[in-house]
Amino acid sequence: MSFPSDLEIARAATLAPLHDIAAKMGIGPHLLEQHGDDLAKIKLEAIEELSDRPKAKYVVVTAITPTPLGEGKTTTTVGLGQAMQHIGKNAVISLRQPSMGPTFGIKGGAAGGGYSQVIPMELLNLHLTGDFHAVTAAHNLLSAMVDNHLHQGNELGLDLHNITWRRVLDVNDRSQRHVITGLGGPSHGVPREAGFDITPASEIMALLCLATDYNDLLTRINRIVLGKDQTGKEVTVGDLQFGDAIAVLLKDAIHPNLVQTCEGTPALIHGGPFANIAHGCNSLIATQLGLRLSEYAVTEAGFGSDLGAEKFYDIKCRIGGLKPSVSVLMCSLQALKLHGGATESTMKEANARALEAGMLNLERHLANLHGFGVSVVVAIN
Amino acid sequence: MSFPSDLEIARAATLAPLHDIAAKMGIGPHLLEQHGDDLAKIKLEAIEELSDRPKAKYVVVTAITPTPLGEGKTTTTVGLGQAMQHIGKNAVISLRQPSMGPTFGIKGGAAGGGYSQVIPMELLNLHLTGDFHAVTAAHNLLSAMVDNHLHQGNELGLDLHNITWRRVLDVNDRSQRHVITGLGGPSHGVPREAGFDITPASEIMALLCLATDYNDLLTRINRIVLGKDQTGKEVTVGDLQFGDAIAVLLKDAIHPNLVQTCEGTPALIHGGPFANIAHGCNSLIATQLGLRLSEYAVTEAGFGSDLGAEKFYDIKCRIGGLKPSVSVLMCSLQALKLHGGATESTMKEANARALEAGMLNLERHLANLHGFGVSVVVAIN
Amino acid sequence: MSFPSDLEIARAATLAPLHDIAAKMGIGPHLLEQHGDDLAKIKLEAIEELSDRPKAKYVVVTAITPTPLGEGKTTTTVGLGQAMQHIGKNAVISLRQPSMGPTFGIKGGAAGGGYSQVIPMELLNLHLTGDFHAVTAAHNLLSAMVDNHLHQGNELGLDLHNITWRRVLDVNDRSQRHVITGLGGPSHGVPREAGFDITPASEIMALLCLATDYNDLLTRINRIVLGKDQTGKEVTVGDLQFGDAIAVLLKDAIHPNLVQTCEGTPALIHGGPFANIAHGCNSLIATQLGLRLSEYAVTEAGFGSDLGAEKFYDIKCRIGGLKPSVSVLMCSLQALKLHGGATESTMKEANARALEAGMLNLERHLANLHGFGVSVVVAIN
Amino acid sequence: MSFPSDLEIARAATLAPLHDIAAKMGIGPHLLEQHGDDLAKIKLEAIEELSDRPKAKYVVVTAITPTPLGEGKTTTTVGLGQAMQHIGKNAVISLRQPSMGPTFGIKGGAAGGGYSQVIPMELLNLHLTGDFHAVTAAHNLLSAMVDNHLHQGNELGLDLHNITWRRVLDVNDRSQRHVITGLGGPSHGVPREAGFDITPASEIMALLCLATDYNDLLTRINRIVLGKDQTGKEVTVGDLQFGDAIAVLLKDAIHPNLVQTCEGTPALIHGGPFANIAHGCNSLIATQLGLRLSEYAVTEAGFGSDLGAEKFYDIKCRIGGLKPSVSVLMCSLQALKLHGGATESTMKEANARALEAGMLNLERHLANLHGFGVSVVVAIN
Repeated sequence: MSFPSDLEIARAATLAPLHDIAAKMGIGPHLLEQHGDDLAKIKLEAIEELSDRPKAKYVVVTAITPTPLGEGKTTTTVGLGQAMQHIGKNAVISLRQPSMGPTFGIKGGAAGGGYSQVIPMELLNLHLTGDFHAVTAAHNLLSAMVDNHLHQGNELGLDLHNITWRRVLDVNDRSQRHVITGLGGPSHGVPREAGFDITPASEIMALLCLATDYNDLLTRINRIVLGKDQTGKEVTVGDLQFGDAIAVLLKDAIHPNLVQTCEGTPALIHGGPFANIAHGCNSLIATQLGLRLSEYAVTEAGFGSDLGAEKFYDIKCRIGGLKPSVSVLMCSLQALKLHGGATESTMKEANARALEAGMLNLERHLANLHGFGVSVVVAIN
Repeated sequence: MSFPSDLEIARAATLAPLHDIAAKMGIGPHLLEQHGDDLAKIKLEAIEELSDRPKAKYVVVTAITPTPLGEGKTTTTVGLGQAMQHIGKNAVISLRQPSMGPTFGIKGGAAGGGYSQVIPMELLNLHLTGDFHAVTAAHNLLSAMVDNHLHQGNELGLDLHNITWRRVLDVNDRSQRHVITGLGGPSHGVPREAGFDITPASEIMALLCLATDYNDLLTRINRIVLGKDQTGKEVTVGDLQFGDAIAVLLKDAIHPNLVQTCEGTPALIHGGPFANIAHGCNSLIATQLGLRLSEYAVTEAGFGSDLGAEKFYDIKCRIGGLKPSVSVLMCSLQALKLHGGATESTMKEANARALEAGMLNLERHLANLHGFGVSVVVAIN
Repeated sequence: MSFPSDLEIARAATLAPLHDIAAKMGIGPHLLEQHGDDLAKIKLEAIEELSDRPKAKYVVVTAITPTPLGEGKTTTTVGLGQAMQHIGKNAVISLRQPSMGPTFGIKGGAAGGGYSQVIPMELLNLHLTGDFHAVTAAHNLLSAMVDNHLHQGNELGLDLHNITWRRVLDVNDRSQRHVITGLGGPSHGVPREAGFDITPASEIMALLCLATDYNDLLTRINRIVLGKDQTGKEVTVGDLQFGDAIAVLLKDAIHPNLVQTCEGTPALIHGGPFANIAHGCNSLIATQLGLRLSEYAVTEAGFGSDLGAEKFYDIKCRIGGLKPSVSVLMCSLQALKLHGGATESTMKEANARALEAGMLNLERHLANLHGFGVSVVVAIN
Repeated sequence: MSFPSDLEIARAATLAPLHDIAAKMGIGPHLLEQHGDDLAKIKLEAIEELSDRPKAKYVVVTAITPTPLGEGKTTTTVGLGQAMQHIGKNAVISLRQPSMGPTFGIKGGAAGGGYSQVIPMELLNLHLTGDFHAVTAAHNLLSAMVDNHLHQGNELGLDLHNITWRRVLDVNDRSQRHVITGLGGPSHGVPREAGFDITPASEIMALLCLATDYNDLLTRINRIVLGKDQTGKEVTVGDLQFGDAIAVLLKDAIHPNLVQTCEGTPALIHGGPFANIAHGCNSLIATQLGLRLSEYAVTEAGFGSDLGAEKFYDIKCRIGGLKPSVSVLMCSLQALKLHGGATESTMKEANARALEAGMLNLERHLANLHGFGVSVVVAIN
């Protein structure tokens, strides 16, 4: 007998009607914007309407130093939410939307695994409600405006060599990292060295996930630094007077998306900044909403505790005034053995010495997390 | 007293519930996929389910040689649909989705004008249901695969100088027309001259609008020519064995979008290929559906009759087996005077001589259209 | 028995001591600057010193429309000079220096053929006295100054898209025709589309060949247009205040080079502008000198009479106040047959009809040359 | 009263006839190739002809760690040669030819200073006999061959990303350091990231200075590594079968140039590899010749002893079997004070403490030089 694959489990799962799931959380139809049968956005009015509800306990899942094995953070996050329901507690999980770039060509696994997955997998892995596309479009419209400004005479005196605003596409495309644009003669702009990043690395993605509402998002967009002028002074979107046009493209993207787990636990999927370059967690708006919709709001922070969790506490929690009740620190015996000197070929064997040596890694992450003044639970996958 | 602007009219219009509009056409809730309150996609099952209904009369609106004035094709198309309802006939109009590129910065007017508009204007002018984004993503994923193929050793022997597949973005960005990509050393692909077009110029957009169903779309995608190999032989998506991944990104985009006019006439907005580079009309799927949902299906063909209408008849009608009942040929007195020798500054003055001279233009377009064996009605705007 | 090759003839020829050749023309050692044994430059003081000598008759060799066969202009020019000596007349021939670009890889033939060659072939085909190198260096120093001016803040307001001054190398290098320069970040200048031409296409080469003395060369250099500023005004070397540095690099290159033919006829080889892009004949200084040093000064004009000879008469003769005594129009029976409809494979066969038809080409060139008011002699090769 | 400038001294100096200078060294007219009045090349036959003469004592001038002041190595080298003559010894100095790149815009000083200069300054600073131009032409012809090889199908399988052979120009042109070439479509080669160095950084310049004769130069040229093929194997000029054409362009450049100092001491100026990237001293051929032409052959090694002198001993002396008799280590009190902590503004003041501290630098260089087993003389400028 063999275990079914993630994909088989995801496809076999029965989807509960989303309005039932919303209703159980106290989200009426007037706050729900359906996007097909199995996907909805929650209107921002919900935040105001639910503001006198008590706040849930906030649980953040992080991990020891990552290994190629995967640490199971997302699976544990989903699993914790499902487990809460099993013991009669209301729980909402909130996660980032996966980027299409790295997930293409990989079967399953983008949002949890086994019986702890967010579904429908196909929607999650592709367009969802188009939030990433909106970020891409907004980012590149801004890029086009910058180059158009150069072409029209460069009134702001931007220094060609100090333009830090690049372009983005949600695809793994190494050939676009370093490019030269503006070629083809006078009518095609000003030649310069430029490049594309992946959409999760867009500063607009980060801002979408840190904004508290539309006006806050607009304010943050206007503060974006595009580069420096020839005197070394920073030039912002506000200087270009183009913030409104960018923000209007994000009018829908700012609404959190509601889906469910294999067991019908509500899951808010919203935003997807990378943890290496940005703060690496789902949107503040989704989090604020989740805290009013449940007894336990479970989320995760990207990479190891020294990267993702630190950014989570230092950036997201500060800006949002969030106070997590507990940090969950994921590890696995194989990962500990790897950190303790075992190799990928030997890590499955019993090896007390490598395990003991690897415990140092766990201890250091524990110490990190204790530094935030929050209880820590170690979870072994 | 002054007339209200297009934007004021669009915002003042009362939107009927979309399921009511759908229901009047015989589209039950099981065939409707809501995308927010004022926007829906119609599932492809509708085509099969409605296949024994009688077909509507098919009306195509075209125009004389375009002038900077605009000929009013879209407004007339919308107006004709609304007028049918006024005389008690069921009508459905079908139009292309506007590109975000050119519409940015222009207030209103993207889909008709005055009291003959498709609404809500904001949805139409921005993301709608993300079909353009899906085309953009699919196109650029394919582009990335081509460059990755070169990077991985170019097994198919693609000739670097004969790669015709470019990239697309739905933004007016002159600085991306001519670029050099693959720079930055060995890990960043193979340097080559490349460039971006606007999304409506994507061949994938054209195929989405010519496909009769998902499998036909996949077949067409596999036939896309990416360039030539070093022996001069054409290399296709099928050769690259990447058609499935591209098509899956268009799984939702293939469903037509349903909105309404200011007066509640159903409007199918689907696809947006440019007429200069592609065939320039809305999707065949939306058209096939519209023909089963009404007594009169009204549509338009881009630019003048010699470009858009010829492509409409020669490409779309042939592929779809469509037989229009009448061509409507738009003109305006001012445009005729312009074609007859008046200038933009004098065209508003009475000028019988210029008008008469300009009639030659009208006559030539009339002759063109008669060549398709279909009755022609001249409409003066 | 077979004829010896050009190379064999050139190598077998006995070289007369150059100071003897100079002496016979009345050029004393004080006017001669030896460059190795078989090559010398004549000092410009010679022009002044010889200014009261009578001027020679000036003979220009041109041709019908060129064919791949070669018309034998240079060989005839050299041969005419040698023939004059045989009949007891003093003659000097003057020719352009061949470019290293196209001659590389071709064995022999760069300056005449058979027993009518200029020697030593190796010197002619390679560096000679470095005049081409000096032009290359001067040209590229100016290019560097232009890019440096952009880098230093572009005080003259040069329009990046309207810089017409390119770079040159005396090598056939197609990969340098279209390049992008100024890459690699802030310390490496301003990115722009640029390119290299071959040294004979340098405007500096043309000016070197039209200048009457060093000061005139400097004046012409200062008038060179580098491009336009952002208001559309032309920017010159004089505006950049860099003419002196450029001219000083040409201080030696302005002196004509003296070599000899296989039969010891003096040959002035100086300058090498292409006829397609410039005026296509040797320097005016060499010509002025040749006219004082002989009874017959024989030269050639590049390509057919409609290109090279017209430029020769309209540009060089006007600027130099030159009055040729006769134009020699080269043709060959094979070339006439080709122009009359024969193919390369049949042109060696007798074909009276093709020959007669091809005479039209000859007649037209004759008419061209008569238009300059100078007698014409047709020479059949 | 003020001292005359270097330029004034150089221009005021009386030049002895070069053939007199050559004759004094025992170089007959048959071994001398005059290049104008004040410049000659010595034919390579001289090496053979003089091979039974005794070898001179070989003196190399080097310095402590360089400061912006200049250490006076060249001036001392010239001065030592002149001083030998004052005490009745035959001396020949040998130096590198200065690059035109850095010297442009700097008045005087390229080869010594004050009354210890090599003259005529204008010839030295500009083209001399064109050796640098020949290196430039040879280098770029090879570059063109590499790109042509790619264009013609790349039979050798060169890896586009591992081509290490660049191009050179003898001009300071930052905008050419990083370029993209091969643009403009199929007929213009293969696009790739490329760049230009300055001619003294050409490997061909280094080889010209290490070769013992023409055949050795050809052998070395054939060993030049152009890059790697796609399997990681190095590809050489020999693989490209193009070494002969490159070497023939250096046929004249391989002959040492003879000029003189202000006091008529013979000076061999030949080759100019930079010490930072190559071995930084004049040609081995000039050195071998100088050793047969004098009692004392004086030369210099670029930069400080740890760079230039080490390369001189480790590379040039080993290859040439040279055994210097003494190393002269230049320093100045100001430079010592700078190394000991003084600043440029205070270094002219008496400062025993800084001087003492700076002696450490001198001691370390002394130790370096002693390591080569040669006596060292410290010279204070």
